[in-house]
Amino acid sequence: MSVNPSITSALDALRYTPDGLIAAIVQQAADPAASTPAGRVLMFAWMNREALERTFATGKMHYWSRSRNRLWLKGETSGHVQEVVSWYRDCDGDALLFAVRQTGGACHTGYESCFFQPLDFAGVALPVREDKRFEPEAVYGV
Amino acid sequence: MSVNPSITSALDALRYTPDGLIAAIVQQAADPAASTPAGRVLMFAWMNREALERTFATGKMHYWSRSRNRLWLKGETSGHVQEVVSWYRDCDGDALLFAVRQTGGACHTGYESCFFQPLDFAGVALPVREDKRFEPEAVYGV
Repeated sequence: MSVNPSITSALDALRYTPDGLIAAIVQQAADPAASTPAGRVLMFAWMNREALERTFATGKMHYWSRSRNRLWLKGETSGHVQEVVSWYRDCDGDALLFAVRQTGGACHTGYESCFFQPLDFAGVALPVREDKRFEPEAVYGV
Repeated sequence: MSVNPSITSALDALRYTPDGLIAAIVQQAADPAASTPAGRVLMFAWMNREALERTFATGKMHYWSRSRNRLWLKGETSGHVQEVVSWYRDCDGDALLFAVRQTGGACHTGYESCFFQPLDFAGVALPVREDKRFEPEAVYGV
C-alpha cells in the first residue's frame, strides 16, 4: 500500500500513547439516506499509525484492537463498514474525531451505537430506548 | 461529600485503565438556548472514580488531568462549566458519553469544541470554519 507523504507528515504530528495509539471518537455524519441522527456518537476505539494510514488509503475506518492485538477493519466480519466523511484533530493532537457513514449498526451487540445504555444520575441503568439494528447471532454466527 | 450507594455500585461496574481512568466523550446536548448544534463533540478527557463521583454530586463535569496529576472541575478558571444532561456507558464499559450544556466554549484555545481543526484525506489542515467563542488571553490571563 502506498502512503501519501503529506498524510505521513500529518500523522507524525499527532501525539500517541507510549503504546503508539491515539483515541478515536466516531460520530454519524449528516446523511439523508441514514436513519441515524447526524452527530450521534457511534463508538470509541483506538488507532495506531497503520490503522490511520489504511483508513485514509481506503476511506474505511480501521482500528487497532488492544484485546486481539491486531489491526482491524471495522465491518470485516459483519459488513458494517464505516465510510469516512470528514475528520478532525483536537487542540492538543491526542484525540481524533471521525464523521462516518455507518452501514448496519456500529455496535457488536446489534445496536446502532455502542453508547445505547443510558443511566440516571444515581448510576441506575435506564431502559434502552431503541431497537437493535441487527441480530448479532445472525451476523457473527455466535 | 456524600456519595450515593447506587452510583458507587454503577461506578464499580465500569472498566478502568490500570491507572484508574476511563475515557469520557463530551457532546453538546440539545439546548434551544445554545448556538452550538446538538451532538457536536466538544472534547475528550479522562475521568477517575473521584471525578465521576463529583460530577454526579454537583451536576458539573469533573475530570482527571493526567498532565497536572489532579482532579479538575471543567470551568474552574474560565467559568466555562459543563452541566450534565445525560450520560451513557458503552457496550464494554470502558468509555462514557456525556451530553452537556456548555457555558462559553469547551476548548482552552477559545473555540467551541476542541475538535475545531478539520483535515483533508491527505492530512493537510483545512481552514478553520468557525470563530472563537472567547479570547483565551482575556479568560485565562496568559
